[in-house]
Amino acid sequence: MADKVKATNITWHHADITKDDREKQNGHKAVVIWFTGLSGSGKSTLAHAVENALFDAGCRTFVLDGDNIRHGLNKDLGFSPEDREENIRRIGEVAHLFTQAGVIAMTAFISPYRADRDKARAIAGEGNFFEVYVKCALDVCEQRDPKGLYKKARAGQIPEFTGISAPYEEPDNAEIVVDTGVHSLEESAELVLGVLRDRGIIQ
Amino acid sequence: MADKVKATNITWHHADITKDDREKQNGHKAVVIWFTGLSGSGKSTLAHAVENALFDAGCRTFVLDGDNIRHGLNKDLGFSPEDREENIRRIGEVAHLFTQAGVIAMTAFISPYRADRDKARAIAGEGNFFEVYVKCALDVCEQRDPKGLYKKARAGQIPEFTGISAPYEEPDNAEIVVDTGVHSLEESAELVLGVLRDRGIIQ
Repeated sequence: MADKVKATNITWHHADITKDDREKQNGHKAVVIWFTGLSGSGKSTLAHAVENALFDAGCRTFVLDGDNIRHGLNKDLGFSPEDREENIRRIGEVAHLFTQAGVIAMTAFISPYRADRDKARAIAGEGNFFEVYVKCALDVCEQRDPKGLYKKARAGQIPEFTGISAPYEEPDNAEIVVDTGVHSLEESAELVLGVLRDRGIIQ
Repeated sequence: MADKVKATNITWHHADITKDDREKQNGHKAVVIWFTGLSGSGKSTLAHAVENALFDAGCRTFVLDGDNIRHGLNKDLGFSPEDREENIRRIGEVAHLFTQAGVIAMTAFISPYRADRDKARAIAGEGNFFEVYVKCALDVCEQRDPKGLYKKARAGQIPEFTGISAPYEEPDNAEIVVDTGVHSLEESAELVLGVLRDRGIIQ
């Protein structure tokens, strides 16, 4: 359908590049993989392990997590209920933009509220959203406590801390559930990759 | 440096994928190309023409413009001075994220204020930001008036309209200046691509 005109060494189309064009270029589908779970459950570690495997397989991926979002795009947001909701909304929108660009977008945020995750799902569009519940018992997460946050929360130094003084709403329709208290990182990542292969997202 | 462990058919690294890794995978550098200019100057058309050529050359690119930003990520923002500034800030942050993912990020927004564009430049980091001033005389833009906005602005139906009732601050250090009132779309796009080749961004 593109109206082509040759000019010097470049082919000019007048049709914009579509998501479908990009997926063909990349050799895989572009979806949002939304990791949710308690602090210390292993969301970010698992997302990066999946990314490493996808990258090695020649896929285009990117992980949005606290490191690249909280100090940049969402640095104007705090931890009030409204700000937490806006934090997740923006992440959902950015993840969707990445998929429009043909990139498999992974997000690794506690995202404790079902309603917020469902909004991210709606933005991505059904079939383009894989919710991964990174399940791990609270006491295991608290024992790991990689950033010392549970200790601070127990000492009352962090208000509204998920699992301690604020709720975590478990997913009731996650596409994938992994229990990192039981399975190794390799097993957990392979579970995610297996679902992506089964659903025809990757080869 | 990666600590590798073989598990089934997957190679596990414990080092995260870097921007450099992605640029090697893609065969080009990932930078922000920031198109700025009056409404009707041809920013979005030019960005999409450049994207088409880059895509045909096998590059990974994405255009952020009003169509995919104003109805999504920035739908909570209006046109007050504070909201305009926040609009451009978020676009700068998202463009930067795309480059971290190895994607050439193009943005097509009026972005009339030098200070806001300079903030986007600072976020991207020097050497990763190409400001393209899409120059076009106001009377030419007003004659084109593709969305009928100048007519509405002249009738007083749009307050603070850039070029009519709000200022446009011309770039004083743009990496690229194209005059779409003089040059064809093909010539304009080739000018942008030529600079990208000269600077070693693309082959």
